[in-house]
Amino acid sequence: MVTEHEAMGRAIALAARGLGTTSPNPVVGCLLLDPDGEVVGEGFHVYAGGPHAEIVALAQAGKRARGGTAVVTLEPCNHTGRTGPCAQALIAAGIRRVVIAVDDPTPVATGGAETLRAAGIEIETGMRREEAEAGNVAWLTAVRRGRPFVTWKFAATLDGRSAAADGTSMWITSEPARADVHRLRATVDAIIVGVGTVLADDPQLTVRYLRDGSLAIKQPLRVVADSAGRTPAKARVRDAAAESWIATAAAVGAGPDGRLDLSALLTELYARGIRAALLEGGPTLAGAFLAAGLVDRVVGYVAPKLLGTGRAALVDAGIGTIAEAIDLDLTDVAQVGADLRFTATLRQKPSDNSARPETGMKEL
Amino acid sequence: MVTEHEAMGRAIALAARGLGTTSPNPVVGCLLLDPDGEVVGEGFHVYAGGPHAEIVALAQAGKRARGGTAVVTLEPCNHTGRTGPCAQALIAAGIRRVVIAVDDPTPVATGGAETLRAAGIEIETGMRREEAEAGNVAWLTAVRRGRPFVTWKFAATLDGRSAAADGTSMWITSEPARADVHRLRATVDAIIVGVGTVLADDPQLTVRYLRDGSLAIKQPLRVVADSAGRTPAKARVRDAAAESWIATAAAVGAGPDGRLDLSALLTELYARGIRAALLEGGPTLAGAFLAAGLVDRVVGYVAPKLLGTGRAALVDAGIGTIAEAIDLDLTDVAQVGADLRFTATLRQKPSDNSARPETGMKEL
Repeated sequence: MVTEHEAMGRAIALAARGLGTTSPNPVVGCLLLDPDGEVVGEGFHVYAGGPHAEIVALAQAGKRARGGTAVVTLEPCNHTGRTGPCAQALIAAGIRRVVIAVDDPTPVATGGAETLRAAGIEIETGMRREEAEAGNVAWLTAVRRGRPFVTWKFAATLDGRSAAADGTSMWITSEPARADVHRLRATVDAIIVGVGTVLADDPQLTVRYLRDGSLAIKQPLRVVADSAGRTPAKARVRDAAAESWIATAAAVGAGPDGRLDLSALLTELYARGIRAALLEGGPTLAGAFLAAGLVDRVVGYVAPKLLGTGRAALVDAGIGTIAEAIDLDLTDVAQVGADLRFTATLRQKPSDNSARPETGMKEL
Repeated sequence: MVTEHEAMGRAIALAARGLGTTSPNPVVGCLLLDPDGEVVGEGFHVYAGGPHAEIVALAQAGKRARGGTAVVTLEPCNHTGRTGPCAQALIAAGIRRVVIAVDDPTPVATGGAETLRAAGIEIETGMRREEAEAGNVAWLTAVRRGRPFVTWKFAATLDGRSAAADGTSMWITSEPARADVHRLRATVDAIIVGVGTVLADDPQLTVRYLRDGSLAIKQPLRVVADSAGRTPAKARVRDAAAESWIATAAAVGAGPDGRLDLSALLTELYARGIRAALLEGGPTLAGAFLAAGLVDRVVGYVAPKLLGTGRAALVDAGIGTIAEAIDLDLTDVAQVGADLRFTATLRQKPSDNSARPETGMKEL
């Protein structure tokens, strides 16, 4: 027997297993409890076009679902998309009570709770909402903003260098940190780099299984921000290992400075079903994304090394003075191999940008 | 009743309370146990010229020390310096057994254990040696090298910037981090900055009590590396709050490039009794110290902010390619206010600098 609270925790964990494969759909997890509180079915949404979490769990439970409770991380859908509406399936299975963590914010899918309620099913919403939202943060943010959730990933020394004076950068971080990047890539729908990075490092930008180096089945779209179309024909990013898109100014549009319109780039990616994107470099493109307010999360791998010269991790994010610094909220600091991994979200600036008086002592 | 192991832990903790005030002496802590293992006296060395830890503890214990055990972090001294030899005092007090963590490496003070043994006292050495050495690392390193133990302290954003594009840097780090710097200063004998920092920021470089901003009684020597003597007469670093030394090339010597001979600077500071020094900036002076192999420890305060432009935390440490990067061993990562504090020691490079083959997968 499990409590509904415990069941929701398990559903949230299950949901996370779909990260990187469900877009443009959210990740969803579902547990079914029989009237005695025993788990009789569980499921998560694995890939877009595949069965929803509720359907997987109902198939597993069969008749044991009757009179029971569905515990689901996101409001069951009410529409017939590539699969039938989950609300109807829950009603048909004789579910008595549905516990929901997060309401569905999309106009097309919303209304599931109302349909269930109209059918006489007891509804509770908001259980472990914060955790469930955190698990779906990329999708929820993307849907609200109409553009992919962007994570900027960088690797640097403790003094903020991403390459030495001669351009060498292999390897700043340890092998476990580099392996961790592959796990991070596996959770997104697209990887974005600037053409400068392609020209300098010729990266392949794939997700590989770390056990044997083989390619993962599901690969993110590889996107090169390349206003003038300078990506070489033989660049590895164009190889057959995954899909690629060389995003040129001709295709996407450009600002008055001739540089790619990054907002338009993200809008186009959203239209292509991309909900989570990983921005991998270089420093100038990262600066442009940050300056445009288009970064949602930062993951920094910091090596316990010093260089003193060489390429900076970040260049020109449009900041002139200390009061304009981009403030981050650290959500996690972890040791990964010899390195540290910082995960942080961008703090929203109040619209009032007037100087904040500091009361700190004059200590210098 | 405490075990000798526990007593040594307490003695090490006591010793640490002397950090910043005992130079040129080491920090030392001592516990006296009576024959039943009860603590009858404890002490630590507070300041050079003041009583040694053993003497403080013996005075406290009085006759209860007779037949007991002295637990001391460093081998009792054997010479008559500003105070009498501790070995004789322990013998006179009727101590039966002495437990020592670390042998005294200085020729003048060594031999205490031998003297005690000759008097029929039982000696054990090496208990909790590593911890005791760590507590005395600055003094031990300084004595071995004949120059102060140098800690380089910096404050920077996550992308390695110590100031914004317009030169503003107040404040990159949070007030708790800045307060922590004062605690760090209180553990050293000297604070070193370059004249560039004096000209740019006019720091006072004092230790203040954080409660009310008042000056601590003991202030580190303020040292300005100023080859051409450009420190203004009215610079705060010259004020009456603490002693200062404007170290010019004329006084210290200079290399062929006209820059101050940093090795000679440190030798001179050692001769003046400085055992622990804090290098506070700026980035160019830090680079020169690192390039010369004269930094022992790094303490970095990293703020969860991004700047993208502005002064780098470190400039020109003589490194041209990634294989030459200065490797650090992180010994501590702590959250201090909104910031993270990294403490690291410099890993000694093997003399063989040939390229090490990397077996990491080609992942880019």
